[in-house]
Amino acid sequence: MTLILGIDPGSRITGYGVVRDNGRNCEYVASGCIRTGNGSMPERLQVVFRGVREVIDTYGPVTMGIEQVFMARNPDSALKLGQARGVAIVAGMEAGLDIAEYTATQVKQAIAGSGGADKEQVQMMVMHLLKLVQKPQIDASDALAIALCHAHHRQSLIPHGLVGAKRRAGRLRL
Amino acid sequence: MTLILGIDPGSRITGYGVVRDNGRNCEYVASGCIRTGNGSMPERLQVVFRGVREVIDTYGPVTMGIEQVFMARNPDSALKLGQARGVAIVAGMEAGLDIAEYTATQVKQAIAGSGGADKEQVQMMVMHLLKLVQKPQIDASDALAIALCHAHHRQSLIPHGLVGAKRRAGRLRL
Repeated sequence: MTLILGIDPGSRITGYGVVRDNGRNCEYVASGCIRTGNGSMPERLQVVFRGVREVIDTYGPVTMGIEQVFMARNPDSALKLGQARGVAIVAGMEAGLDIAEYTATQVKQAIAGSGGADKEQVQMMVMHLLKLVQKPQIDASDALAIALCHAHHRQSLIPHGLVGAKRRAGRLRL
Repeated sequence: MTLILGIDPGSRITGYGVVRDNGRNCEYVASGCIRTGNGSMPERLQVVFRGVREVIDTYGPVTMGIEQVFMARNPDSALKLGQARGVAIVAGMEAGLDIAEYTATQVKQAIAGSGGADKEQVQMMVMHLLKLVQKPQIDASDALAIALCHAHHRQSLIPHGLVGAKRRAGRLRL
C-alpha cells in the first residue's frame, strides 16, 4: 500500500490529489486546491510551499507526481508557472518524497487510454476510477489524474506481474 | 546596520551577494555561486533551496533583493528560470526575510547611473563601490549589484535625509 500525491501547479491555484495504491487498484484519499490569494508574489509562493507541505504532513504520501509542463504560451506566464512548480517540487523534496514528472499526453494516455483525450473525458475517468460521486474541481481532478498516472507508471516498474500486462495495454485499468 | 542579500537566480548557477549597509555606504560581506550540478531537476532545485538557506543561516541578512526577470526568450527557459527563482524566493520567505524585486534597468540605473549600462560596466562599478580588488564571477557580481540596488532603494525610503537627496540624483553614491 502506497500513498501517492499528484500536484497540478499554478500561479493562482495549485491542485492536489492523494490516492492509496494497494497494488491492484487505487482508492481516493483526498483532493483539493491551494489558492494563493491576493498577496505579493513571494507571499503567494509561500502559500504554495506551505500548502503542499501541509498536504504531505496530513496524508503522509511517499511519492509525488507532477505534470511536466510543455506549452507554447508566452515567457511571462511560463515564468510564473515555473515559480509555483519549483516551489511545489522543493516542498516535496524537503519532505523526502521521490518525484516523477509526466507529460500531459502520458497522463491522458494512462487515464483515458488516449493521449488526445480532452479535459472532460479525463475528469469523467478520474471519477469512474476512484468511484467519486461528485465531480471534483478541475485543478483537483487534474491532480488526481497525475496521481493515478504516477501509480500506473510505478506499477509498471514491477516486472512480470499482472500489472506489467496491464501496462502493455497502454491504459490504466483499475 | 543592515545585512542585505542579493540573489541572481538561474537553473544552472544562482549567484548570491551579501553587503552590509551602514546607512552611509555599503561594505562587501560575501558573494558566490550556487552550482546546481548534474542531478535530476528536483535535485537541482533542492540545491538552490538549501544553498540560499545556507547563505542566510551563515550571514544573517534580514532583507533580500532579486531581479524581476523580463525577457523575450522561449517559454521553456522561462519555466526553468522560474522554478529556480520561485525556490530562491521561498527559501528567503521561510527564513523570514522581506523580499523586493528590481528590474534589470533599475539595477543598472542604481549601480551605473544608466539603465542602458552593459554588464561589464555594472561589474566594474560593483568592484569600485565595494572596493573589491578581484573581479567576482559574473553571477556573484550580478547578485552584489542587486544587493546594492536594494540597499539604495531601501535608503531612499528614509525621508528628508541625505540619502533622499542622493536618490534624486538617480544613481547610487556610496
